[in-house]
Amino acid sequence: HVDWDVTAAEKGGYEYFMLKEIAEQPRAVANTLLGRIGTDGRLTLDEMRISDEQLREIDKIIIVACGTAYHAGLIAKYAIEHWAGLPCEVELASEFRYRDPILTRTTLVIAISQSGETMDTLMAVRHAREQHARVLSICNVNGSTIPRECDGVLYTHAGPEVGVAATKTFLTQLVAVYLIALYLAQVRGTKWGDEVFAMVQLLATMPEKVERVLETMEPVRELARSLANERCVLFLGRHVGYPVALEGALKLKELAYMHAEGFAAGELKHGPIALIEEGLPVVVVVPPRARAVLHDKIVSNIQEIRARGARTIVIAEEGDESVVPYSDTVIRVPAVPTLLQPLVATVPLQVFSCELASAKGHDVDQPRNLAKSVTVE
Amino acid sequence: HVDWDVTAAEKGGYEYFMLKEIAEQPRAVANTLLGRIGTDGRLTLDEMRISDEQLREIDKIIIVACGTAYHAGLIAKYAIEHWAGLPCEVELASEFRYRDPILTRTTLVIAISQSGETMDTLMAVRHAREQHARVLSICNVNGSTIPRECDGVLYTHAGPEVGVAATKTFLTQLVAVYLIALYLAQVRGTKWGDEVFAMVQLLATMPEKVERVLETMEPVRELARSLANERCVLFLGRHVGYPVALEGALKLKELAYMHAEGFAAGELKHGPIALIEEGLPVVVVVPPRARAVLHDKIVSNIQEIRARGARTIVIAEEGDESVVPYSDTVIRVPAVPTLLQPLVATVPLQVFSCELASAKGHDVDQPRNLAKSVTVE
Repeated sequence: HVDWDVTAAEKGGYEYFMLKEIAEQPRAVANTLLGRIGTDGRLTLDEMRISDEQLREIDKIIIVACGTAYHAGLIAKYAIEHWAGLPCEVELASEFRYRDPILTRTTLVIAISQSGETMDTLMAVRHAREQHARVLSICNVNGSTIPRECDGVLYTHAGPEVGVAATKTFLTQLVAVYLIALYLAQVRGTKWGDEVFAMVQLLATMPEKVERVLETMEPVRELARSLANERCVLFLGRHVGYPVALEGALKLKELAYMHAEGFAAGELKHGPIALIEEGLPVVVVVPPRARAVLHDKIVSNIQEIRARGARTIVIAEEGDESVVPYSDTVIRVPAVPTLLQPLVATVPLQVFSCELASAKGHDVDQPRNLAKSVTVE
Repeated sequence: HVDWDVTAAEKGGYEYFMLKEIAEQPRAVANTLLGRIGTDGRLTLDEMRISDEQLREIDKIIIVACGTAYHAGLIAKYAIEHWAGLPCEVELASEFRYRDPILTRTTLVIAISQSGETMDTLMAVRHAREQHARVLSICNVNGSTIPRECDGVLYTHAGPEVGVAATKTFLTQLVAVYLIALYLAQVRGTKWGDEVFAMVQLLATMPEKVERVLETMEPVRELARSLANERCVLFLGRHVGYPVALEGALKLKELAYMHAEGFAAGELKHGPIALIEEGLPVVVVVPPRARAVLHDKIVSNIQEIRARGARTIVIAEEGDESVVPYSDTVIRVPAVPTLLQPLVATVPLQVFSCELASAKGHDVDQPRNLAKSVTVE
C-alpha cells in the first residue's frame, strides 16, 4: 500500500487539493503523452512487454476496473472497437471474478487502477492470469502491485493525487486508453500510419483544450453555488458522453452526497423520465455536431425533458447553436473529435461537483466514508 | 403497434392492474415453461428456427434490450456464461448501434422486448441482421415486429400486461433466458442431459416458489407504507442480485419518482458509500448461502453500511440466520439455486414499489411521463 506524503504535498495556493489537481490536468495530460509519440508519428509504449505479434493474435479485450477507472474503461470500449476493430467488454472488477468469464491466451485483459493496489482489480488480474490471458495495466503509482503482476503497464504520469475523488488521474487514464487503442490499431493495421498520426496530433492538442475549459469555469462555479440546496441532479449522455455522465454523477455523489445519477440518454424513456419534474436540474453532455445522428437525438432528448419542466444544463461544443433554445445554461467546451470529447466534457463536471460540495460546507478532499485507494475487497 | 384493449382487461378485484399482474406471476412463469420441457427432460424451443448446427457454431452472444428487459439481459449473461460457456455481452439497445459492435455470422444477438415494438431494440436487430449475425428475440406480443424480423423467437406467455411498469413480463423474460441458456448448454454439450434435466426440474418448481413469496408480502407492504416519506432508497446486490437491485431501483423510480439507485455491492467502497447516512434505507439482495464467497462478502457489506447508520432491509433465503444481527428488516424468499434467485428476489421489490407509490397517492398503472411501449427512438 502506497501512501502519498500528504504533509509534503503542497496545495499551491488552492483551498483544496482537488482544486489544485483539477488545475494540473493540462500538464498531467501532456506528461502522459510525453515520450510516447515518435517524430514519425508512430507510438511507442515503453513498458508494454507484450510483443506486436502477440497483440496481433488478440481477438477480444476485457477491461476490469472500479469506480472512476471503470468509467475510463467504458470510454475505452468505444475507442478500441472503433479504431482497433476488436470486441471489447468492460466489467466491474468486483463482479468479474464471480461470474465465469471466458478467457484464453488471445484475450487481452486491461486493468485500470490509479493506485495499482485496488484489491478488487488485483484479484481480477490474478484470475485473468490463471486463465492464461495477457494482462496489461493502466496505473498511476510506479512499482505498485498491479503493474508488477501484469505482462505490461502503461503509466499515467499524473503525479500524486491527494483528493479522494479522482480528477487528473481520470483524464490521464483516458489518455492511456486512447494511446492503447491507437497502438492496437497501429500494430494490427486497422488504421494506417497517417491515420494514427493524425489522431495522435489531435491528442497532442488536448492539454491546451483542457486549459481553455479551465479558463472559462467561473460561470460553472456560480451555477454550482446556486444549486447547493437542490436534492437531486441528473446527468445524461450518449456514446462516450454516457460514461462522462456517469462520472459527473459519481463525483457529485462522492462530494456532495446528493442524488446524482447518470443515464444513457436513450434509456430515458424506458423509465428514468418519470423522475423529471419542474425545476429538476439535468446536465446533458452533447456530442459534437460532426456525429450528427447522435447529436440530433440528444437535442431531442433535451427538448423532451425541458417540456416536462427540467432545468437543462447543457455541455456543448463551441459554435453549436442548436442547443441554445432548449438550454437554461450552456457550458461551452472546445470542438474536438467525438472520441476525445470526454477529455474536455468531464472537466466542467469536476469543477461543478467540487464547487457545489464546497458551498455545502463539505471537505472535498476527504469525503465521508471514502478512502483514496480501496485495498480491501 | 399493438395496443391491448384496456377496457376489456379486468382488474380482477385488484385496485391496480399492476397488483393483478404481480399476482399472476406464478401462472405466467408456469405458462412460459409449458410445452418446452419434454418428458425426457430435453428442451424444445418451438420457434427457435436456428438449427442446432448453427447454434454449435456460435462463439459470442450479444444481448440488446432497454429498461427492465435490459436487466433480464444482465441476468442472462451470468446464466449463459455459466451453463453454456459462451462469452456474452449485454448492451443498451440505444447505445448498441452507435458504437462499432463487432458481429459475424457466428454471433448470436438476443433482443429482449416485451412489446416486440421497442424502437431502439428493433433498430439494433436490424443493425445486427445487416452484419449477418443470427438474431433471436424474446417477446411477449405474438406477431409483433421484432419477432417477425428475427431468425427465431421465444415467446413469453405472460399474457397482456397493462401496468406500465413491467412485472410479470420481467419474470417470464427471466424464464426465457434460462431456457435459452439451458438449450444452448444442451445443444453444445456443455451440460449433460441429466444436468439440464435437473435444472429444468428446479425451474418447474419456480411458480410454486413465487407463489410462496406472494403469500408473505404483508410485512413488505407495511414496510413500504412506513417509508413513503423517505427521499431516497438504495439497492445493493452482487452477481445476479446486482440486476435485481437495478430492477428494484428502476421500479421505485418509475412509480414513486424517488431517488432509487442500484449498485453492485462491490462498487460501494469506490464511491456510493459516501451516500450512506443515518437512517437511509438500503435494500440488500443476499445470494444463497450455497454461493459462500459471494454470500459472505455481502454480509460484510451489510455490516459496513449499518455501521454508518443505514437502515438495512435485507432479502435473504429462508434459514439464512447470518444476516439477522445486521438487518433492521429481513424479507425471506425460498431457497433456490443461485442463478434462479432473481425469480423470487424481484417479487418483494415489485410489491414494495407498488405499495410505496400507492401510499404516496400515485397511479401506479400510469406513471407520469411513461408509455407502455416505447415505439419511438
